[in-house]
Amino acid sequence: MVLLQPEKAFPDKEKNFSEWYSLILERAELVDIRYNVKGFVVYRPNLMRLINLIRDELEKGLTETGHQPVLFPLVIPMSYLRKEEEHITGFEAEVFKIRGEEGEEDLALRPTSETAFYPMYSLWIHSYRDLPLKLFQTVTVYRKETKATRPLIRGREFLWIEAHDAFPSEEDALKQVSEDIRITRNALEKFGLAFIVVEREEWDKFPGAEKTFAFDCIMPEGKVLQIATTHYLGTKFSIPFEIIFLDKDGSKKYVHQTCFGPGLSRMAAAVISTHGDEYGLVLPFEVAPTQVVIVPIPKEGFEEKVLEKCFEVEKRLKRLNLRVKVDDSEDRPGSKFYKWELFGVPVRVEVGVKELEEKKLTLFRRDLRKRWTIEDSLLEQEITYLKDDILKVLRRKAYERLEGALVRINCRDEGIEASKNGKIILMNFCGRKECSEKIREDTGGYEVRGRRVDVEEKVWGPCAWCGRSAEKVVVIAKSF
Amino acid sequence: MVLLQPEKAFPDKEKNFSEWYSLILERAELVDIRYNVKGFVVYRPNLMRLINLIRDELEKGLTETGHQPVLFPLVIPMSYLRKEEEHITGFEAEVFKIRGEEGEEDLALRPTSETAFYPMYSLWIHSYRDLPLKLFQTVTVYRKETKATRPLIRGREFLWIEAHDAFPSEEDALKQVSEDIRITRNALEKFGLAFIVVEREEWDKFPGAEKTFAFDCIMPEGKVLQIATTHYLGTKFSIPFEIIFLDKDGSKKYVHQTCFGPGLSRMAAAVISTHGDEYGLVLPFEVAPTQVVIVPIPKEGFEEKVLEKCFEVEKRLKRLNLRVKVDDSEDRPGSKFYKWELFGVPVRVEVGVKELEEKKLTLFRRDLRKRWTIEDSLLEQEITYLKDDILKVLRRKAYERLEGALVRINCRDEGIEASKNGKIILMNFCGRKECSEKIREDTGGYEVRGRRVDVEEKVWGPCAWCGRSAEKVVVIAKSF
Repeated sequence: MVLLQPEKAFPDKEKNFSEWYSLILERAELVDIRYNVKGFVVYRPNLMRLINLIRDELEKGLTETGHQPVLFPLVIPMSYLRKEEEHITGFEAEVFKIRGEEGEEDLALRPTSETAFYPMYSLWIHSYRDLPLKLFQTVTVYRKETKATRPLIRGREFLWIEAHDAFPSEEDALKQVSEDIRITRNALEKFGLAFIVVEREEWDKFPGAEKTFAFDCIMPEGKVLQIATTHYLGTKFSIPFEIIFLDKDGSKKYVHQTCFGPGLSRMAAAVISTHGDEYGLVLPFEVAPTQVVIVPIPKEGFEEKVLEKCFEVEKRLKRLNLRVKVDDSEDRPGSKFYKWELFGVPVRVEVGVKELEEKKLTLFRRDLRKRWTIEDSLLEQEITYLKDDILKVLRRKAYERLEGALVRINCRDEGIEASKNGKIILMNFCGRKECSEKIREDTGGYEVRGRRVDVEEKVWGPCAWCGRSAEKVVVIAKSF
Repeated sequence: MVLLQPEKAFPDKEKNFSEWYSLILERAELVDIRYNVKGFVVYRPNLMRLINLIRDELEKGLTETGHQPVLFPLVIPMSYLRKEEEHITGFEAEVFKIRGEEGEEDLALRPTSETAFYPMYSLWIHSYRDLPLKLFQTVTVYRKETKATRPLIRGREFLWIEAHDAFPSEEDALKQVSEDIRITRNALEKFGLAFIVVEREEWDKFPGAEKTFAFDCIMPEGKVLQIATTHYLGTKFSIPFEIIFLDKDGSKKYVHQTCFGPGLSRMAAAVISTHGDEYGLVLPFEVAPTQVVIVPIPKEGFEEKVLEKCFEVEKRLKRLNLRVKVDDSEDRPGSKFYKWELFGVPVRVEVGVKELEEKKLTLFRRDLRKRWTIEDSLLEQEITYLKDDILKVLRRKAYERLEGALVRINCRDEGIEASKNGKIILMNFCGRKECSEKIREDTGGYEVRGRRVDVEEKVWGPCAWCGRSAEKVVVIAKSF
């Protein structure tokens, strides 16, 4: 096997993520930022295909757990949005508004759709027989971000799925939260991402939620990115929206609700940033729009034979239900190699006269940038192995970064030191907002992300920052 | 075979379409109109599943012909929208606007996206090597309809696909128009719909188009509904947006463009209205979210055996890649029959003790409302036959209605008579707008839909309305 080391096209993403990210979005033809409205960008085909695969995986998880698709209006009357007080306080500043026509009220472009869904829930839910109600929609949402925007990570328009569920009891609703976590975990594992799951602090919950759980993905430079949240809403919305059901025992009760928002744009950003390298995108088979590209290496007089072989290989791989493509364009093989590496195609098959004569095929795997030759007859077996192995390697690499970034600290000085080294911090925490603000100040922006719930962590000492008695172990990190 | 005639739940759609349509949208749980914003409705799961299947079929057609998915911003700067004069004149009154922030211009919610796409096309297209460029997006669009709205047919928010293509020549662009027509025709045939394809008159073209071709679907009460259009734009947008390419011969040229808009909401309305009957929805296998429902007929002591058989049948049908479901809810079989008929499931399989003992299965096909018994071993064969036959029967029925509605007229009196009988009129036409306005006046709303292009019609006399010499045969009908 040969490890290829041609000239690198991109800077080191760990040292200069901003530049790396901007370059890859442009060169891999993912996003065009030249659309003339602040915070709005164009999603190009390479990105949309990636996002559609991410979407399919999450929609599959939702469908398998009894969720049904719906589509609610984009516009939400301001009076709906105002029904739950914390909710509107959390969103009002970010709302894009359409002026109501004469005698009609102003309309918000959905920043999230609790207040669109729940007036209908009060019309649809009457009895315990109507429960659980589990609906989702895949839509764009709109938030007038005031911070600097960054495509897919922080924009004024982004794609997500939002699921809104209603249950007869708190117990059922909390079970749903676990199910949402399981659905997300299963999907993210297929994308090869490393993540932690945390319960957000009181002051950092979704506006209107009783509890908020979040998936934070590790990104370059040791930052984290929230890519999905699930919330236990309790009866905070069912009381103002009067979502009441007649229980088996004849009593009237408020439903207990959950909502769940996996962010499709952000998951794409995480996939791009986690796996990409100095040569471009790297994608696991699961979300690669093209999984195998076949490149003919032409030689005068043998063009037809070579191409014929390429199409035979394509046919064989299509039988394995793979998304495969012969690049029979007029470019030189070198340009093709460059382009498909840049676009992150997991495996390249090269077919030339040498391969024909020796009944061999040359393979290239994008993640390790390794090139080697196999017997033609072993193609199917090899590709099947690579499908698994590439995901394994990418996931292992992502987790090694996460594990390498995590550090336990026992005092403020250790914390400041860790923050300077771009670490993700685990520490005992008193639970006070003031303390979290002090941490942010002392570290230049590290935030308390919350109590880790995917791994059980036991308090081993006092609050590392203020020395008061600690009530939990939390994750502290810089976030996008 | 037994033809079932229980009490009908709906009025005759040919006599009272409005009432029939409103009832079916509500009872088949397709749409909820109680969302509190004029012209905006909620798409419920039964509708979204239907629309997703329609979408998949059209996206497949587009993908197979080289179109790539994108997502452009919802908001379009007013200055973009104003770049092509006819275009803005056609849309400005219908535009929902978001007030621009200080120093920034107002933004329109896309009523259609030519003016969002084409500024980027001028950045992406440089050489003939960049052509053809064929992109599409599946999105909601927004038009402030002033007429009375009707869910899925005329609303302020609806779902469609829009494809925007650029070519080096008029010839290539016109070929694309034919391809768009073929894609649409193939899809509509799978949905069992009857339609005519027409070229719209000069005054009835898409704002900014050189030529507009439309699919008009026949609906109850003899009306037609436009469910897709494709437009040859020529260089009408490429000139103001400066979409220029360097041709092979070294000369700079404007691209020739097409755009294509199959309406997903309207196609769903056409499927619902064409096939539905007095018992509810009727769906062909192709767009039925559930294709076969299996209903256990319980008998005390045999519940388990009956259910076991149901799941065996489910397993066998899933092997045929069918969307199948066992209804093991607690409702009585009668309620289940009623519900799944209402929801339009094409085939029901009933399994009871009698079936177990005799190794038989009872089938019910929704389109003909026929119930009969088959040998258990013939299940796969029978369902495979029904899949084809139901579509054939629905399509034949739809075409019989269309053919029965079409009438050729030779003079104004015949035209007025035909319009009173709810016919769709074919006539020789002078091509003048004044004449079309006279027709509308005389008939209480019949419109010139355009020259039929799916069937060649030769002029056989003077203009039926004004007696001037005729330049073409046109279709005249009342439309939604």
